[in-house]
Amino acid sequence: MTVSIDDVRAAAQRIEGRVRRTPVIEVAPGLTFKLELLQHTGSFKARGAFNRLVAAKDRGEMTGQGIVAASGGNHALAAAYAARELGVPARIFVPETTPAAKLGKLRTLGAEIVLAGSEYAEAYQAAETARDESGALLVHAYDQPEIVAGQGTVGLELLDQAGAFDTVLVAVGGGGLIAGIATAIGRNAQVIGVEPVLASAMHRALEAGAPTDGPVGGVAADSLGARRLGELAFTAAREHGVRSVLVEDDAIVAARKELWRGHHLAAEHGGATAYAALTSGVYRPAADERVVVVVCGANTDPSTLS
Amino acid sequence: MTVSIDDVRAAAQRIEGRVRRTPVIEVAPGLTFKLELLQHTGSFKARGAFNRLVAAKDRGEMTGQGIVAASGGNHALAAAYAARELGVPARIFVPETTPAAKLGKLRTLGAEIVLAGSEYAEAYQAAETARDESGALLVHAYDQPEIVAGQGTVGLELLDQAGAFDTVLVAVGGGGLIAGIATAIGRNAQVIGVEPVLASAMHRALEAGAPTDGPVGGVAADSLGARRLGELAFTAAREHGVRSVLVEDDAIVAARKELWRGHHLAAEHGGATAYAALTSGVYRPAADERVVVVVCGANTDPSTLS
Ligand SMILES: Cc1ncc(COP(=O)(O)O)c(C=O)c1O
Ligand SMILES: Cc1ncc(COP(=O)(O)O)c(C=O)c1O
Repeated sequence: MTVSIDDVRAAAQRIEGRVRRTPVIEVAPGLTFKLELLQHTGSFKARGAFNRLVAAKDRGEMTGQGIVAASGGNHALAAAYAARELGVPARIFVPETTPAAKLGKLRTLGAEIVLAGSEYAEAYQAAETARDESGALLVHAYDQPEIVAGQGTVGLELLDQAGAFDTVLVAVGGGGLIAGIATAIGRNAQVIGVEPVLASAMHRALEAGAPTDGPVGGVAADSLGARRLGELAFTAAREHGVRSVLVEDDAIVAARKELWRGHHLAAEHGGATAYAALTSGVYRPAADERVVVVVCGANTDPSTLS
Repeated sequence: MTVSIDDVRAAAQRIEGRVRRTPVIEVAPGLTFKLELLQHTGSFKARGAFNRLVAAKDRGEMTGQGIVAASGGNHALAAAYAARELGVPARIFVPETTPAAKLGKLRTLGAEIVLAGSEYAEAYQAAETARDESGALLVHAYDQPEIVAGQGTVGLELLDQAGAFDTVLVAVGGGGLIAGIATAIGRNAQVIGVEPVLASAMHRALEAGAPTDGPVGGVAADSLGARRLGELAFTAAREHGVRSVLVEDDAIVAARKELWRGHHLAAEHGGATAYAALTSGVYRPAADERVVVVVCGANTDPSTLS
C-alpha cells in the first residue's frame, strides 16, 4: 500500500479551513523554520486526524459510535479535537502512565478517556477491540493512508511557501509525518528523518530492510517513541530515498533551549528534534544549501524553559 | 516633524537582511496575527534600532563612542543587539529597578550597563548627558523619526502578507510602533491603538489635544509604561485618524494566557495587549471585518505561563 501525491492533494482540499496554514520564517540566510507547532492542538497531528475523519464521514463510514484512538500525546489531542469539531464522539485509550496534565486537556476537548495498559501497544490493542465491538472508526497515530496523506499537507505548504530549498529535516516517530512530507516533496528536495538515538525506529528499519521492534526511551519518547516504523513510512522512505540521522538526547535538549532563547519558540522535545540535527552538527549542510526545519510540536510545560 | 511613507520604505531597504520578516498566521476566519514576537531580541524594537544605527553610520555620524540608549526593557535589548551586529559599542542606561534577568541578557549582548535612577525618565536624562559629553549617538525608545520609520516596516510587511484587511490592532507605549504602522498603512486600513487603563499615554493625548504626563502602572508597565506620548506619535495619530481603546489589566492577563493555550505563543503582557481588546470585547469587529493583531513581544518568563 502506498500513498500518492494525489492523495496528499486530496487531503489538502479536504482539510482546508479546518487546520491552520502554518507560516514559515527565515531565521538566518538559507535556514527556514516551518512553524507547525502553531497548528491547532500544538502539532501537525490535527492534519491527519481531520483528513481521516472527514474522508470517513464523506464515505458514510462514520457511525454514531464516532472514533476510537490510542495515544497519550499529540495524536490523542488531535483526534479528540477533530472529533469535537465534527460533532462526533471520541473514545481515547491512553496508557496509565499518561501525565495528568494531558488527561486534563483531553477532557476539556470532550473526549471519553479509557486507561488501558502501561504502554502504547496495550492501549492500541484496547482501541482495536473497541473498534471491533462497536463499529467506531479507528484513527491510527501514523500507519493509515489518510493519516499519512494528511500529514503530507505540511510538505505541500512548504513547496508553496518556502521558495526553493534543498533539504528538509523532519522528526520521526512512527513515520506518518515524514512519509507524507516525502510524498509531497518528491524530487523537489532531499528529505532527512531525524530520530533520537534512544528511539530510532526508522533508522533500524532502513538498516534491517524492514520495520522491526526495538526499545524506546529518552526525552522525546512521548512523541517520537514508536517501537516500530509504520509500513507506509517504510515504503515511502524507500521510494523517495529518505535519509536518516540520529541525535543524542543532550542535543535535543540543547536545540529546544536554543529555539526558546534564540527564536522565542516554545517547542516540546519531539518538536525540537529535527533542529537538533543542525545545532549538534550531526547534519552539516553545504555552504549554499537551503535547509528547512519542521518545528512540529508545542505541547510542553513552559516552566521547564526558564 | 513628521515621518512619511517614503521614510518607512527607505527604512525597509536599510534594515533588510538584518531583521526578520516575521510571518503572519490566520488563526480564525478573518483574524490574523502578525508574529512580531519572533523578531530578533523578541520584539519589533530591533527594526527601529537598526534603522537608526545604519542611517547614522551611512551619514558618517557614528563615532568610536558608539551609541547610548535608556531602557531596562525591549528597547535596551534591541539597541544592544543592533550595536553588536554593527560592531559599535553600546552604553545602556537602565533604571535601578530593572530585573537581574534582563541585565544578564543585556550583558550577554556585550553592552555596557549603567544603573541610573529609579525610573525611565532619570535613565533617559543620564543617556542625554552621556551623549552630550561623548558624542555618542542617542537611540530613543520611540520619539525619533528613524525609530518610527523602522517600526513602520511592520506595517509594510503586513500590507504585503496579510491580503486585504480592515483593521489592525496595535499596543501603544510611547507610540513609536503605532506611528510607524499608521504611516505605512495609510488609508489601507483602520489603525487602532490599544493601551492598558493604567498606562494610557495616547488616549490621554488624543483627549487633551496634546501629549501630557501621566501615571504608569499595571502588568504591562515594563513595555507600555511611557509617561507621555511621543510628539511624532501624536502627529501621526492625528494625521492618520488613529483610534484608541483601553483594556483592563485582567483582560491583558487573560489574553496572554489565551495566546499560550489556544495559539502556542509565549507573549509578554505588552505583547498580548492588542489581542486583549478583542478577547475582552472592548473592540468588537463587525461580522465580516478582517482584523490583524500585532503580537509584538516575547520577553517573558515562560514559567509564568503554566
Ligand atoms: C511533536 C511531534 N513530532 C513528531 C512526531 C512523530 O510523528 P510520526 O509518528 O508521524 O513520525 C510526533 C508524533 O506524535 C509528534 O507529536
Ligand atoms: C512588547 C512591546 N509592545 C509594545 C511596545 C510599545 O511600543 P511604543 O513605545 O513604540 O509604543 C513596547 C515598547 O517597549 C514593547 O516592548
